[in-house]
Formats: sequence, C-alpha cells, structure tokens
Amino acid sequence: MAAQPAKPLEGYTGYAHFNITSPGAFVAHVEINRPRKLNSFIREMWLELRSIFGQLSADPDVRAVVLTGAGDRAFTTGLDVQAASESDAAVQGASSDVDGARTATKMRRHIYEFQECITAVEKCEKRESRPLVTRPRPPTHRHGFLGPVICILHGISIGLAIDLSCCADIRLCAADTRLAVKEVDIGLAADIGTLSRLPKAVGSSSWVKDVCLSARFFDAAEALRAGFVSEVHENKAAAVAAGLAKAALLASKSPVAVQGTKELLNHARDHSLRYTAVWNSAMLQSNDVSSALLSGMQKRKPTFEKL
Amino acid sequence: MAAQPAKPLEGYTGYAHFNITSPGAFVAHVEINRPRKLNSFIREMWLELRSIFGQLSADPDVRAVVLTGAGDRAFTTGLDVQAASESDAAVQGASSDVDGARTATKMRRHIYEFQECITAVEKCEKRESRPLVTRPRPPTHRHGFLGPVICILHGISIGLAIDLSCCADIRLCAADTRLAVKEVDIGLAADIGTLSRLPKAVGSSSWVKDVCLSARFFDAAEALRAGFVSEVHENKAAAVAAGLAKAALLASKSPVAVQGTKELLNHARDHSLRYTAVWNSAMLQSNDVSSALLSGMQKRKPTFEKL
Amino acid sequence: MAAQPAKPLEGYTGYAHFNITSPGAFVAHVEINRPRKLNSFIREMWLELRSIFGQLSADPDVRAVVLTGAGDRAFTTGLDVQAASESDAAVQGASSDVDGARTATKMRRHIYEFQECITAVEKCEKRESRPLVTRPRPPTHRHGFLGPVICILHGISIGLAIDLSCCADIRLCAADTRLAVKEVDIGLAADIGTLSRLPKAVGSSSWVKDVCLSARFFDAAEALRAGFVSEVHENKAAAVAAGLAKAALLASKSPVAVQGTKELLNHARDHSLRYTAVWNSAMLQSNDVSSALLSGMQKRKPTFEKL
Amino acid sequence: MAAQPAKPLEGYTGYAHFNITSPGAFVAHVEINRPRKLNSFIREMWLELRSIFGQLSADPDVRAVVLTGAGDRAFTTGLDVQAASESDAAVQGASSDVDGARTATKMRRHIYEFQECITAVEKCEKRESRPLVTRPRPPTHRHGFLGPVICILHGISIGLAIDLSCCADIRLCAADTRLAVKEVDIGLAADIGTLSRLPKAVGSSSWVKDVCLSARFFDAAEALRAGFVSEVHENKAAAVAAGLAKAALLASKSPVAVQGTKELLNHARDHSLRYTAVWNSAMLQSNDVSSALLSGMQKRKPTFEKL
Amino acid sequence: MAAQPAKPLEGYTGYAHFNITSPGAFVAHVEINRPRKLNSFIREMWLELRSIFGQLSADPDVRAVVLTGAGDRAFTTGLDVQAASESDAAVQGASSDVDGARTATKMRRHIYEFQECITAVEKCEKRESRPLVTRPRPPTHRHGFLGPVICILHGISIGLAIDLSCCADIRLCAADTRLAVKEVDIGLAADIGTLSRLPKAVGSSSWVKDVCLSARFFDAAEALRAGFVSEVHENKAAAVAAGLAKAALLASKSPVAVQGTKELLNHARDHSLRYTAVWNSAMLQSNDVSSALLSGMQKRKPTFEKL
Amino acid sequence: MAAQPAKPLEGYTGYAHFNITSPGAFVAHVEINRPRKLNSFIREMWLELRSIFGQLSADPDVRAVVLTGAGDRAFTTGLDVQAASESDAAVQGASSDVDGARTATKMRRHIYEFQECITAVEKCEKRESRPLVTRPRPPTHRHGFLGPVICILHGISIGLAIDLSCCADIRLCAADTRLAVKEVDIGLAADIGTLSRLPKAVGSSSWVKDVCLSARFFDAAEALRAGFVSEVHENKAAAVAAGLAKAALLASKSPVAVQGTKELLNHARDHSLRYTAVWNSAMLQSNDVSSALLSGMQKRKPTFEKL
Repeated sequence: MAAQPAKPLEGYTGYAHFNITSPGAFVAHVEINRPRKLNSFIREMWLELRSIFGQLSADPDVRAVVLTGAGDRAFTTGLDVQAASESDAAVQGASSDVDGARTATKMRRHIYEFQECITAVEKCEKRESRPLVTRPRPPTHRHGFLGPVICILHGISIGLAIDLSCCADIRLCAADTRLAVKEVDIGLAADIGTLSRLPKAVGSSSWVKDVCLSARFFDAAEALRAGFVSEVHENKAAAVAAGLAKAALLASKSPVAVQGTKELLNHARDHSLRYTAVWNSAMLQSNDVSSALLSGMQKRKPTFEKL
Repeated sequence: MAAQPAKPLEGYTGYAHFNITSPGAFVAHVEINRPRKLNSFIREMWLELRSIFGQLSADPDVRAVVLTGAGDRAFTTGLDVQAASESDAAVQGASSDVDGARTATKMRRHIYEFQECITAVEKCEKRESRPLVTRPRPPTHRHGFLGPVICILHGISIGLAIDLSCCADIRLCAADTRLAVKEVDIGLAADIGTLSRLPKAVGSSSWVKDVCLSARFFDAAEALRAGFVSEVHENKAAAVAAGLAKAALLASKSPVAVQGTKELLNHARDHSLRYTAVWNSAMLQSNDVSSALLSGMQKRKPTFEKL
Repeated sequence: MAAQPAKPLEGYTGYAHFNITSPGAFVAHVEINRPRKLNSFIREMWLELRSIFGQLSADPDVRAVVLTGAGDRAFTTGLDVQAASESDAAVQGASSDVDGARTATKMRRHIYEFQECITAVEKCEKRESRPLVTRPRPPTHRHGFLGPVICILHGISIGLAIDLSCCADIRLCAADTRLAVKEVDIGLAADIGTLSRLPKAVGSSSWVKDVCLSARFFDAAEALRAGFVSEVHENKAAAVAAGLAKAALLASKSPVAVQGTKELLNHARDHSLRYTAVWNSAMLQSNDVSSALLSGMQKRKPTFEKL
Repeated sequence: MAAQPAKPLEGYTGYAHFNITSPGAFVAHVEINRPRKLNSFIREMWLELRSIFGQLSADPDVRAVVLTGAGDRAFTTGLDVQAASESDAAVQGASSDVDGARTATKMRRHIYEFQECITAVEKCEKRESRPLVTRPRPPTHRHGFLGPVICILHGISIGLAIDLSCCADIRLCAADTRLAVKEVDIGLAADIGTLSRLPKAVGSSSWVKDVCLSARFFDAAEALRAGFVSEVHENKAAAVAAGLAKAALLASKSPVAVQGTKELLNHARDHSLRYTAVWNSAMLQSNDVSSALLSGMQKRKPTFEKL
Repeated sequence: MAAQPAKPLEGYTGYAHFNITSPGAFVAHVEINRPRKLNSFIREMWLELRSIFGQLSADPDVRAVVLTGAGDRAFTTGLDVQAASESDAAVQGASSDVDGARTATKMRRHIYEFQECITAVEKCEKRESRPLVTRPRPPTHRHGFLGPVICILHGISIGLAIDLSCCADIRLCAADTRLAVKEVDIGLAADIGTLSRLPKAVGSSSWVKDVCLSARFFDAAEALRAGFVSEVHENKAAAVAAGLAKAALLASKSPVAVQGTKELLNHARDHSLRYTAVWNSAMLQSNDVSSALLSGMQKRKPTFEKL
Repeated sequence: MAAQPAKPLEGYTGYAHFNITSPGAFVAHVEINRPRKLNSFIREMWLELRSIFGQLSADPDVRAVVLTGAGDRAFTTGLDVQAASESDAAVQGASSDVDGARTATKMRRHIYEFQECITAVEKCEKRESRPLVTRPRPPTHRHGFLGPVICILHGISIGLAIDLSCCADIRLCAADTRLAVKEVDIGLAADIGTLSRLPKAVGSSSWVKDVCLSARFFDAAEALRAGFVSEVHENKAAAVAAGLAKAALLASKSPVAVQGTKELLNHARDHSLRYTAVWNSAMLQSNDVSSALLSGMQKRKPTFEKL
C-alpha cells in the first residue's frame, strides 16, 4: 500500500505510456504503464522516456527517481517486436533499392536515437535540450542534474529491461524476477547499452559472457550473487516500498554531496583523482557541509537549499 | 560579386542575427549578421547558432557549409562584453547570497550550454535535438550529418572567432585579418573550446602557448605559417569566393565518402572540453574579470591579487 | 560418457600434443594431451596452440570451442619448468658474453611470442596468419572469427592454466579443482597475461592481489565466490558435459549475433557506445533476425547461414 | 598475543601519531595511534603518514607492510571534524574577502596535498622525496619500492578508513567491523580517493553507488560478499595475526617477483600486455628464479638478495 | 648512378613485383616494380609487401630500409582499380544473394587484411608470422625489429602512395612529385590508414581536411611546407641518392639506440585503424564507388543519391 | 645590456650552478652557470634544478620564468659525459656481480629521478615536496603554481638542451644556435623526455624522426620552420631581451587566467615517460654506450653488435 504512489507529479502530465507521481518530497516515481503488453516498448515510448528524464534532470524539485513497471507480470519484456517488425526499418534487413552504405547510415542514426533515449536515464548533468525552433519564446536556461535513479525489477525483465536498469544507479528486485539478456536469441547483438554497461556493473566476466551469449534466464538470487542487483525483496510491493524509502533517504541528503558523488563515481570509470580535486575545489564551498555537521550534532534533520 | 550570396535557403528564415542563403546546389552560406556591433555575440546569437547548425545537420540538401561574418571590419570581435556584463552571471563573479558550490554549479551549466552551442559547428553526426515537449506533434526522425564547414576569417577575428573557426573543418582568411586569443586579457582562460582545439589544429606548441598566454595579435601571414589557416586571399571578397568554390567542389563529391572522411578524421581526437568546464566553473568567479574589464574601459593597467 | 568426444575434427590432424574432436555440429573440442606430464607445456605446445586456434578462427564450420585437459589429475600444471630450464633462455638469467640490452631484447621477443600464442585463445576476429613465404601457392583469404571459448578446469590448474583460462570467454570447473597463480613462487611476475586479464575477469581487487602475491591455492568454491568461474560441477566428467552442452547451445544461435556480442563485450572493456552503433549498422542487416523471430513464433529450431 | 608487535622499527622513531614496529624479518607494522580520539585524523597525521610510507618505500629492509589502528573501538573514524572545523579552510566555505577563484585554488592545492598523503600508501615505485633545500648535505639516491600493504580493519571504520584501505593491496577485517562511506552525510563528495578507487576494488556498481550515496553502514559479512575485504576473522586480534602471517609469507618471496606482480597489476588497470613484456625483459634476468626453483626442488626455504 | 642499386639482397628473390637489393652494409632497398602500370597495386602485391617487410623485420643484417618506385612516371598511382573492379568484392557493393551483415563481415575481413599488409611497413617489433601449419618443419624463433623506413616519393604519388608513405618513418620527395589523397573521388573514405596517420604526421588540421576532403593535387613544395615530407630534391635520382645516404647513416649507428628511438616515438600514438575498418565494412557497400569509377572512365560528372 | 639581469632573487641563494635573479616584478631569471664546461650537466645540477623550480612553483611572487645559459658558446651541451662515466652507474653497463633484474631496477630508479628533475621545469601545479623528515618544524602548506617558462636557446644546444627546452612553454633562440638530439650517437635512446615531448611540440613527424634518428645538427632557421622555436633573434643578447620582455608581459596579466590557460593546454597531452624509463632500464645496459663514447674520444667509427 505504501508503495502505491498517488499524487501526480506536477508538470508531467500528457505522457501516454508512463505514470509520473510524487510519493514524497524531492522524489519522483516513473512507472512504465503498458501492462497489457507486459510493458513492452514501442518507439513512441522511448521518445517519451527521453523527454521525461530530460524534464526530471532540469527539475530542481526532484532529487531522486524510482523507476518501476506497472502490473504484476513484467517490468518490461523489451522491444515490442510485433510492432517493430511492422513499422521499423532497424529489424527489416537491407531494403533492396538503396545501397548498403545508405541503409547502414539510416540504421546508425536510428540506433543513435534509441541509445540516446535510453541513456537519458543515466546522464548526470543534463544539457538544455530545447532548441530555438520556436523562436518567439525567449531562450531559457535549463541545464540541470538528474538525481540518483533506483530501478525496481520484477516479473519478466528481459531485453530492454537490462539496458534500462544498467543505466540506473541502484538496482533492486523482487524475488520472482526472471531476467535475461535476450537479444542473441533474435539474431541481434544487444545494442542499446547492455554490452557496454553490464561488464562495468558486475564483477565476473565469465558470468557476463555466459548470460549474454546464451540468452539464458537467471533469477533474483543469481542476480544478487553476481552483484547485478544489490537487494532482493520478497515481492514487487516490498521491493517498490524499499526503493521508495531509499529514494526518500537519498533525497534528504545534501544535493551538492549527492550530485558530486554520482558525478565522480561515473567519471572514475575512466578518469583520475585530479578531476576530483578540481570538482571539489568549488563544491566544498557549499554551506551544506556546515549545515549537515550542525544537524548531526543537534540530532535533527538537516534541510538543504535547492541546487 | 560572385561571392555575394542571393537566394535565402528555404526553411531557414526567422533567425534574427544570421543570414542563411543558398549560393549553389547542396551548399549553405551562414553569415553572422550584426555588423554594427562588429558581429560580437550575445547569448541569443549562440542559441540561434546551435539551432541553425542543428537544422543544417539534418538537412539532406546541404552537403557543405560556408561560415562568414557580415561587413568589412570584423568576422567577429567575440563576446559582446558590454551586453554580457549587464545580464550574464558568468562574468559577474560569485554573488554574495549563495554559497560558492551553488554559484559554481550554475556557472558550470552555463558553460556547458555555451560550449554545446559552439560545438554545434563541429559535430559530425548530429543527434535529434527536438524533444517531445510539445507532444501533439508526432515524433520525427531527424538525425543527420553536418557536411564540411569552411570558415572565412577577415578583419578583426578575436576571442570567439578563434573558438568558432577551430570548430570548422577548413579555415581560409583575407590578407587583412587580425587574430588574437584575447581571453587572457580579460582575466579568463579561453573556455569555449580554443584551448582544447587549437593545439590539435596546428603543429607548434611554442606558438600556441605564445598566442594563448600573451593574447597578442597575429596576422594572416603568421596564421598561414603556423598552419592555422590553409589559404590567404587578398581581401574578404576573394576569400569568400574561394570558400564558396571549395564548398561547391566538396558538395559535388560522394556524400558517403565525404561523411566518412570527416567522421574518421575527427574520430582520432579526444575531447577534454568537460574538464575545461569544471575548471572554469570555479575560475570564472574571479574578480580579475571585472577588474580587467574596468581597466580596459579606463585605459589603465590592471592589478591582480596574488594567487 | 557423453563427455568423451569421439570423432576427430577434419583437417586438424597432425598436432602432437592436442586432440581436436567434433562432439557435435559447429562445436570443436580441444584437449591438451600430455597427461603423463600433467599437461605441462613445452614451447612446441604453445606454438601448436596458436596454430590450432588460428585454424579454428578461420573455420566457418566451428562456432564454439571447448578447451579441456586430458587425464584426471590436472588441467595443466603450467610451464614444464624442467624442460624449460634445460633449453630456454627466458629463465636462465643474463648470459655473460652479451650485454644486458641485447639479452633483454632477446627475452622481450621471446615473451611476445609466448603472449601471442596464448592470446590466440582470446582473439575475436583473427587475422590471416599465413604469409606468402611459399609463393607458388596462390594467396587465399582466410580472416575469420573465433567462436566463444569455454574452458573446463579440473584437478591441478596452476600457472599457465590461469593465463589460458583468462583468455577463454566462459570458465567452468570441477569440484576437485585446485588453482593457483603460481609464478611468484618461482621468482617470476606472471607474465603471459594473468596480471593483465585477471583483474578484469573478477570483481574483488583484494582477492586478486592476495592470490597473485601469495601464490596460495584456492579451490573451486572460492573460485566461484570470487566470480573467476561461473559454474562448479561435481567432477570433471560432469563439468566437461556441461561445457559441451553450453557450447552446443551457443553454436545453435545466430553467428552474427554471437560474434557481435563477443566482439562488443570485448570492445567495451575500454570503448564506447558509438562503436556499438557503427558495428550494428551493418550487422542488423542480417536475415538471422527475422529467421530467429519466425522460429520463435513457430516453436521450431532456427537454422542460420554460415558466416 | 602474537598480534602484539614489540620491537620498534629502527629509524622510524619520532612520529607522534603512529607506532612503527618490526614483527619479523622484512615486515613493518604501522599502527595509527590516537585511540582516545578513535584514531581520527588531524592534518599533522596525514603528513606523518606520507613521511612514513615515503621512508618505507625507500627501505630495502621492508618488503611487506601491515596497517592497523590502535585500540579496540575503531580503525579510524576518519577526519577529526571537530579539529578540522576549527583550523581548516577546506570545510569552512568560501571566505568573503577573496574571490571564488582564489578560494578554489587554495582548496584545490589543499586537496592535492591530502590526496597525495593518502596515495603514499598506494604508490609502487616511490620517487625520491627529499629535495635539496638543505644543500650542505650531499644528494643521495633513495628511490625505492613500497612492498604490498595489508590493511586490517576493525570496529568503526568510516570515512578516511575507506580511502586509506582502498590504497592498500589486501584488505582483511574483524567480524565486528562497521564500515561506511560517510562523507555524503556531512555534505561532501568523498574526495580523498574512495570514489576513484572503490569502483575498481569491487565488482558490483549497484552496491558501490548504494553505499556511497546513502552513507549507510555495512558489516564485515557484507564487505566480504561484495569483495571489499577478502577475509573476515573472528576478532581484531585474529585479523591482525592473520595479516602479520600473510605479510611474513609475502616477505619471504622474491622481491623481484613481488614488486613486478604489484607493479603489473596496478598498471593493468588501464594498460596492456606490451608493458608487461618490456618490464619482464629486464626482470627475468634475476637470479631469484633459479634460486626459487632450486629451493622448491630441495624443499628448503629460499633466500633472496635485497632489491 | 650512385642511386642505382645493384646487388640483390640475399634470400629475397622470388618476389614478382618488387626488387630488393643491397646498396650497402645493413641497408635494404625495396623497389615497387610494376612501372608499365605506374606501379599500381593488385592484391598479390600487397600480400608480397607484407611478406617482404615481415622478412626484413626478422633480418639481423638489415638496419634501415629505403622504399622507392620503379620508373620515372610514378611512385604509385594506388590501387589498380581496373584489376580490382574485375576481381575484388570490396569495390563491387553488396551482392544481392547474401544479407548485408554477411557482406559487411566479408568486407571487414578484407579490409583488415589490406590494412595489415600496409601496416607491415610501419611495425617496429615484428611478430613471428609463420604458423605451424606445415608441422614437419621445426618451429623457429624469428621475432625481430624493422629498422627505420625512408620513403622516396616521385612523379604521381596518389591514393595508396599516401597510405604507404605515412607508414614510413621519413619521407623525402623529388621536385616533380604530384600528390593527392584521391579516394574521395571514387566514393571511398581513404581506408588503408591515411585518415588515421596523416593527421599525426603533419601539423595543420585545416590543410589535412582540405586535401582529404577535396582530393586535390598538391606539389612537392606544398608537401614540404605542410611538413608531410622533410626534404625535396631536384629529381628522382637525387632524392633516391639522398635517401640511400641517410639510410647508410642510420645503419651506422647503434641498433639499440635506433630501435629504442623508433619504438618510443611510435609508442606515443594511439591507433584507431580498427574503427576505420568497421566503419568502412558498411560504407564500402555504396553504389557511389562504381558510379564514381564509371564517371571517371566516361569523363562525365557523377551524381550521387542523397544520404 | 637590458638583458643583463642584476638583482638576485631573494631566497634563492646558495645554488652552486645557477644564477637566479629578478629582472622585474613577478619575473624570475634562471641562468645555467657552468660556462667553462659549456653548461654541461652533472647530477648535482639536475637535483639543484628540481629544487629551484620547486621553490619557484611555490613562490607567489613569481609569475613567469626565463631560462638561459651563461656564456656565449652554449646553452648546454647536455650531460657531462666525462664526469658521468667516472661516477654514474647509468652509463656503465651492467656490473657483473649483480643479476640483470637488480641492475635494471637500480637504473630505472635512477632514470625516474633524472626525468623527475627535468620535468620540474614543466609541472604546472607543483606538489609540496618537503617531507616531514625534520619533524620539529611545523608542516607548512606550499603547493603552488609554476608560471609560464620561456627558454632562450643559443650556441650549442644539444642533448639535454632539447629535453629541457621541450619542458618550457615557449622557446626562442638566437640566430647562431646549433641544435641536435644527440643521444643516438652515444648509443642511447634519448630518455629524459625528448622522445615523448618533441612529437607533441612540432607538427612534422618526418622531421622529428629525421633529427632523432640521425642525430644531425639543425640551425635556428630550420628550428623556426619546423615550429620548434617560435622566434629567432639576431644574437643571444637580443633573444634574452625578447624573452625577458615577453615574461614581463605575461607576468602583468591575471594569474588566474594565465594559470588556467597553461593548465588546460597541458591537460590535453598524455604522458608516456614511465614507459620510456622501463624500456631504458634494460636498454641502457648496452655496451654500445661505452663503445660509442670511446669511439668519439678516439675519433674513429664505432662498430656495434647485432641486435
């Protein structure tokens, strides 16, 4: 019940395939909402996803995000292959009337777009995405920061489910979750991010290659052992509740510290200590430090200015 | 006369500070058009610039671009410091009521935006930039390719002129051009790309450090010797004519070959622009900027605090 | 019994120290065959190993490889130190009559050769290795793809056993396996690949340093906990059977998808999503996708063209 | 009792906050010694730490180092915030009379110093750190090698405890250890190395982000599961004893092999096999190899020359 | 006359398209010998080239190499397009009966082979290239070092001439040399190394992009100004004589010093040739190639489809 | 006359081989002062050099540095080979009583020290180099910034002259300067930084390889054409005067801007000096060095063993 989000998040209406609600201060709950189709994705959905996370990253009232799937049966079963095969060039093979280079160019751009939409879930400091096409409206400054994203997996969680959750910062799941990197089974190398991100998300390369090459299912217990998720809860409701509680906890901390921590952890995947020093030379000037210290001594909850 | 473009390029009307015309098949001519202010830039202009090059990169009818500045006196004198100092947080130093970390965060986002706008001139395969904010309109697929950009420098070409032309593929100039990496004179480390791109554009590091650290002027002949430009023409008209002819030549070749060549040449380079932004998010809070600006206006020598 | 391969793989006869058999369609089984010496390696063996995996990588009839050691006692005990100390310059220290630089040059070339032979087990897209020395024979085009390699460890598995299995994609082992990175015990820094590959194969750096610096033994259970192997089976026969079954599974899938997945996972260790997109822009044109989709709907086994 | 080091290490007297003793041949035991303050750090301590590890790295009689904290309650509780807030600019926010850039510059240098002191625990081949300021004394050549560092955590081990132990090669802990990456709770992004090193020390990114972003405590069992420590012992005494025994084991091995192994493992985090070959082309000329081989055959303990 | 090499280099007979002679101690002279066809390349030639440079790199009697083209008219005009279009899949576009992925795979392997052959001219420490296919012969150890390569350009030097000379260490040319990166004119992105190596060989990026994108000719004087060649001599004979004298000078120096100098200078550069191959595996399927070729033969302006 | 610095810089007395004076506000002039030996270097000198630049980098009163050599005949002739051959292990080859690995280790540390001393001229933000060995004195905070370094070459400028000037930001020279990368002539690969830095300092790789591999002299005009220096003045006095004037100009600008500009320009480059040291730790054991030295003294042609 606690996991049932109620209040819609202001300014996020009008999305056809996602519910965006506000379960508490500074927390946003994004729910994939196409349960009749097991939350499988059509192109319109990943464009919406990019738009939603673009908005969230520029919203000073959101400091942590929880991502879930509606319904009991699946977080998502991935690409809606049925729909895609009817409309989408990417899975149709080369058409005969254009040459291979032009077909590849069209596909490459298509994949960039898809990657970019999914990557929106991962981006730390988001760039202004609204161009000046509608020039009458004065340009506004909207670069922002996407708070930590907690992804709650449950039920069937395959294909795009892995791509998406690899973009999240923290992954929890329900005990009934059945996961698979399924793309190899339909003749594809998983191309929306799993092959780039999964090896950096878990430790054992033998396990990564096994699940990616065999497309076999693995359950919640194996996902925990492999380090893919960091917590397993008894059912979806419990997992979502735990995710929302964790989001509330993170949202209660200094956004300067949380943003810096997320940025520096992401950056460390290939960079050095020097960047850390440069970043902090400015960030340490924050009043949050003394405010947090003081609250700790006085045993009360600190409040932090918006960032 | 041949260099005088006539026909406006269809679909590119409504930009306040740029003329976009079509001097021939598959060629676009973008002219910075604020000659009364020596083509100096205000924020609205670089947002327009991003929008224009975003459009160009998705336009299958454009295969080469020529970038010039209107009027006889200057390609551009860079940032309109007067206007900026009135409206823009980036050169005002830290305000006193927010802490240093939040000021730095705001500045870092501001710099990202500025970098992103200038970088639009360099991007090879452009990503879809229109989000789904206005959801009624159906999502369209517009990823494309920005053809080679030929930049024609003339007259005063300082500050942003170097940042911008470093993003172009080929640089030509008129014999009267006077160039300078001017930022150090107003207390800034040139931060919109020159320090990242100039060392990769020319061969001699001693020359690069000299012009960047001393902010001294150099002329067309020196620019040619250093390899910064690859051709010098006797005046602006001749340089623009040569640029348009070269653009016509490139536009007549296979776009598959041209795109591949540009993409692969760009691919070698590694980008460290992000580091620049992080560094400057703190460094721009210096009082040296206003002090240098003030001294410049009052024609006296500035003094700077110890570091 | 199922694990006992029978039919020799055609074209792979004449190797003195390896059995190469065909346990099923598109699967090759390579068995190190020097059980009396606990499958320890002499130089001739690693040259054979390179030759075998060179052949396998150019063989369109092989899509997955299983690597095992003959006999019950050891996968391999590593370098045959006895033999090496009699014949091999690499472990004899500097000879007195040549200067240190020339000794080091000779050793460096020796190590390159050794590294290259072991690395043959890892290479994805293999290059043509036959030069034109025997010029009469017309040059033939033999670049190919080495399918996933599954390594089955059992018994004593030390020294080279770790180097070799680190080059495999998937590692399984028998419950009786006793492993060690043994080189430090004979005054060597393990130099044929373990120190480069092991830290990328498992997650815990404290564990990696412990086993590499102490040269202590660890058993199958610890190897599983650390993520070095992804499955432990009750004995060698069961492990080999599981490996062969997994190989058969992988060999039944689209080689376009399997090759792409292996290539992109290997590439991701230091590269980006962009490469993925470029790769897939061509690879997605495969008929395997529709063929796999169709088979899935019709609940029948798909067949895929040779690659 | 065995864990109680007795004999002071010669030449290491005069440090106010550390006990440096010699529990056996070629082993040094460094104990943080400020138990009344739970071994929390003041600036003088990290400067001493750098000095101690600088000395150790140039000491041919030290081949392995054990790092522990005095007293039963804590390895260290990190920065002595009380003391720091009284004296240290880094946590005071920007002072009002200097501009933000100069404040950031001062902080950046402060952080470099702090990072450099902690990093002294990690450095492999240490550089000569004594400059010629006191010119009368003749310059001496003291570059050396820091042997493997084994860190024993117990009790409260938070903040700097994680930064420090991430610099060690091997981490063991007592069953009572309570760990946390605590910085986010005081408004800081952990900046002395944890965010750079922790993701490379353990496998699961979801776990790393969870503990770094939430600042929650985790116990010894979780630290073992995550791979952060590689052994848990029942109490501090047992853990220290195990660490000393392991140090004695490592110190008994060829320093050429141990140094090479540590250097190459550290180097492999971003480099290639080629470096390994170049390194070993010289290192394999050691007599340690034959000496170790011979000892192994003769079942006696080898001795190795100093390095 | 002095430039006329006489004595064949022992052990290098039997190559159909190259003369290999010994103009002096420790120097080898490799001459491309197909002057009737302006030294244009067919596949057999680049396989021979790899074989020759493989032999040279393992030959302790060769310390410097001079590479020239036979005849007065051309160093080389590049790929023999006529021959290639008759026999070679790489320039025929996708065949209709196999899918695009398999066509791209075949092309990628073809490009790898071609790159590898040209790269043989650049390799420093060469690897043993003879596998054990003919097992009777005992394995021999032939890793070696390829001495500095001096390339002498003259006459028409286009296409492959640039790829090849970019692999050499030092480039000299005759005053009559006419150079061009010609590939863009036949619908190709120069794919055998020019786009990776040329930007690292000269300083001015504007010049590099100009010659690569426009495919225009440039002469010896411009090549010297741009830094592409380091000396221009009055005619071919003088240039060859100068190259042979320089080779003799380099061959007289310590091979330890020369090898180390070449290795360390090469080490700085990072390679992105693989990316080039992947990109082109799709891009070469373009109809633009045949369309450009046809137009060239028919002396008319080609038209290209939109991209 | 203007170029004759007069006032000693306070706090920089007591250096035996360098004059350090203050020619104007915020400028330091460092003069190598061993003219009788043509400013050749002995070990004590490079240790002093490190100390001087360490001091300068922590001195808030110094914002630009000019580096020159005393006397008319030479900036420096490099290493004092005579002195070195008497006292220094690095050029003596392996001694016979220790094994090759230990000899290489000693040499590697020796090279690190040498590299580190020369690199002191390049470092931007210098770290605190005074350790706590003399504990009575309270630790002080001295991290600082080394202002731009302008190097003035004149007369003979070989060997170390190139290493040193490559570390400077700006290079000027007198018309009489005779330069050479001389190391290859004494059997060495130039190992103190030239091979890493020179290719990044100038544009033409053909020229770099020519001068590094042939050890030939080049004059001021060629140095200017190649981009190695950015100005040539008619004699030493004029060059020094120009350098001092430029330093005064740079010192008059905002140190925030100058420091940022230098830091960001340097940041682009990647360092491979460590690899150089490892390589040379083995390579310097060559007999070629003493053989080359001996031949030089005896004016006869050296012979070298095969490699």
